[in-house]
Amino acid sequence: MVPHLVTALTGPLLDLEKRMLDGTAAIERWFRMAWQENTPPFYSSVDVRNAGFKLAPVDTNLFPGGFNNLPPDSLPLAVHAAVSAIDKICPEARSLMLVPERHTRNQFYLTNVTRLMQILKQTGLDIRLGTLSADITEPTQVDLPDGQHLLLEPIRRKGDRVGLEGFDPCAILLNNDLSAGIPDILRNLGNQVLLPPLHAGWAVRRKSHHFAAYDGVTESFAEMLEIDPWLINPYFDSRSGINFHERVGETEMADCVSDLLKRIQAKYDEYGITEKPYVVVKADAGTYGMGIMTVKSPEELLNLNRKQRNKMSVVKEGLEVSDVIIQEGVHTFESVNDSVAEPVVYMIDRFVVGGFYRVHTERGRDENLNAPGMHFVPLAFETPCNTPDCLGNPDAAPNRFYAYGVIGRLAALAASIELEQTAGAEVTA
Amino acid sequence: MVPHLVTALTGPLLDLEKRMLDGTAAIERWFRMAWQENTPPFYSSVDVRNAGFKLAPVDTNLFPGGFNNLPPDSLPLAVHAAVSAIDKICPEARSLMLVPERHTRNQFYLTNVTRLMQILKQTGLDIRLGTLSADITEPTQVDLPDGQHLLLEPIRRKGDRVGLEGFDPCAILLNNDLSAGIPDILRNLGNQVLLPPLHAGWAVRRKSHHFAAYDGVTESFAEMLEIDPWLINPYFDSRSGINFHERVGETEMADCVSDLLKRIQAKYDEYGITEKPYVVVKADAGTYGMGIMTVKSPEELLNLNRKQRNKMSVVKEGLEVSDVIIQEGVHTFESVNDSVAEPVVYMIDRFVVGGFYRVHTERGRDENLNAPGMHFVPLAFETPCNTPDCLGNPDAAPNRFYAYGVIGRLAALAASIELEQTAGAEVTA
Repeated sequence: MVPHLVTALTGPLLDLEKRMLDGTAAIERWFRMAWQENTPPFYSSVDVRNAGFKLAPVDTNLFPGGFNNLPPDSLPLAVHAAVSAIDKICPEARSLMLVPERHTRNQFYLTNVTRLMQILKQTGLDIRLGTLSADITEPTQVDLPDGQHLLLEPIRRKGDRVGLEGFDPCAILLNNDLSAGIPDILRNLGNQVLLPPLHAGWAVRRKSHHFAAYDGVTESFAEMLEIDPWLINPYFDSRSGINFHERVGETEMADCVSDLLKRIQAKYDEYGITEKPYVVVKADAGTYGMGIMTVKSPEELLNLNRKQRNKMSVVKEGLEVSDVIIQEGVHTFESVNDSVAEPVVYMIDRFVVGGFYRVHTERGRDENLNAPGMHFVPLAFETPCNTPDCLGNPDAAPNRFYAYGVIGRLAALAASIELEQTAGAEVTA
Repeated sequence: MVPHLVTALTGPLLDLEKRMLDGTAAIERWFRMAWQENTPPFYSSVDVRNAGFKLAPVDTNLFPGGFNNLPPDSLPLAVHAAVSAIDKICPEARSLMLVPERHTRNQFYLTNVTRLMQILKQTGLDIRLGTLSADITEPTQVDLPDGQHLLLEPIRRKGDRVGLEGFDPCAILLNNDLSAGIPDILRNLGNQVLLPPLHAGWAVRRKSHHFAAYDGVTESFAEMLEIDPWLINPYFDSRSGINFHERVGETEMADCVSDLLKRIQAKYDEYGITEKPYVVVKADAGTYGMGIMTVKSPEELLNLNRKQRNKMSVVKEGLEVSDVIIQEGVHTFESVNDSVAEPVVYMIDRFVVGGFYRVHTERGRDENLNAPGMHFVPLAFETPCNTPDCLGNPDAAPNRFYAYGVIGRLAALAASIELEQTAGAEVTA
């Protein structure tokens, strides 16, 4: 079912991968110490891009779907990691309500929900699904293609607790990124554990906060590993007060793009990279690849047509875009049978539990692979991310996946710091 | 390389396996709470026997060898579990000295040592090997069949710390069961972490203490799961002051055997089991299947010939046997191509990381499979132990392995309680 991976790195073999391989013990200790200081997100997934000369995260998701795309051998790892997380966060918990996205007809997504329930059950929790969908007013069974069923139930509030009819959960796990805003029913809960916190949702969260935290993380990591932090960190800047419809802020964005392209070109010159630099303009809040465009020159931003402006102005759930992040584009130089492949790394707590490639046949190396209507083929990682083969080639699959796992964890650590820094922001959202 | 497993349970399908499957959430929560109260051993392996009507541990090893026999997919699980353990025990540690057994010529054992080093390195520790062998007076390289090498170095003491030349480890991990007694060089260490504690070694440890703790553990577990604790717990008794050479204590042992056989027969009658009860007489301290015999009637103990008495009187490293445990025999009703198979479950911290079968072609169902000169074939478990398939047959492989993992963890929990109860006993040993 899953095609064989033909990894065709066009760039030179990464000295970076070799450094990481030689430095595994130091890297793992560095993470161990970092997680003593910072609480990892309950779960996360990170889109990583491998440009051959650079390996960097481009997006960090704190409400990961797609657990169904992970390789089967990631399930036991996920169970261990979830046990660790629950042990730490709510050791006495008996029951947990999982809150999925509202788009209940997406069978791929619902298979992800089943997988998550399977993982959580093995931590010793009774699991039920509570939906925020207004359409679901009574327990509703949804049939899945594999013959399994899910029972979606409407969330009920009683005083400062939420639950379902006959179910008062100890903890609530959101798998809904709150793009539509923070629902009142979830605000000001009493002593129920709510994971991730409300301010991790896109109603509050900003990519620019995340990547600012990532700057700090990579600075410290790069110092430890004695590498140039740019090799694992995309440049970025952000602008607010933008209105794409009314063309407010275009010049500011174009200036920002111009500046970024110059900085990237300087680095390309330093490393003898002959590729053409580009940047990606994205909504600072939101997900699902809406409100996103690739830009190779500042002029492109001054000449947007109506269709492009429409596309940029709205993200999921109809949220208006007024803040943007402008990020260095990282080429994807991995391919499977001539199709571009982008790795996604999944974590629960501080553990990488697995990953897969998004393989897309119709898109280029410098395009966004997570776009509406994109029909990617998931290609599960062939080996786990925590068992590098120190005797093997630095670019052998287990070693490359180890490097991806390191980048994924750096992004998760940044998310942890970001969430600490923005704690309480949901109050005014 | 590994033959395909043909599981041929001759007994009835275990109602017990079904109970465990239906009760996974409750079982996992029960363990979660138990591990809040008790510190798991750093690592352990448990010999489990499946009699069809009964599933029970017969031996719990706190210095497990055989990590090399685990399936490859247990490696990432082992890394996660070791990270958890190190996080908890010595989060700031940079380096660890692993102390292997002295029998350095056993290539299987040395491959186990390499595997352990590989796991520990991924927790972010510099690992080196310190040997207690008097033969090794300078760093000595040992070549392994797979082309890898190990460097064995003599342990040096400086004040209240031990280490190697140029290596002052933060922690010490024993993979040596101290059958030869507690070496003075390891006594009264200052602030170096020593795992497992000295009193976990066979110089101090007693199987009867372990199984007394296991009694308590299974009583509580059986109450939660509403099962008869006998289904997971072998009856046992112990006698001390025995001298096999001089035939001291024979009558007391025979009386004890008689009493145990009656109690087992009563249980067999209760469950309609037509097998013939037997007991196993073992040295209360020690390992490696020496000092062990199967007994079907009290008279057998009164008529031991010289050879049998010699065999029973000494265990590994020449230790004299004066204390014995007399334990209900649990038949092994699993087989692979007509050979008897005994499962062994491996744990690091509170996590089951994998397991394998000892498959032996020349032994019967009621014999000890861990004996000197036994050339078992390791048969790695096909699936992990923490991902039961709740929709599958209760006896499907993932479900059977889940049940083995539960029994393994109950024994590890008993070991944890045993070690708490016997703390400090090394002072007088």
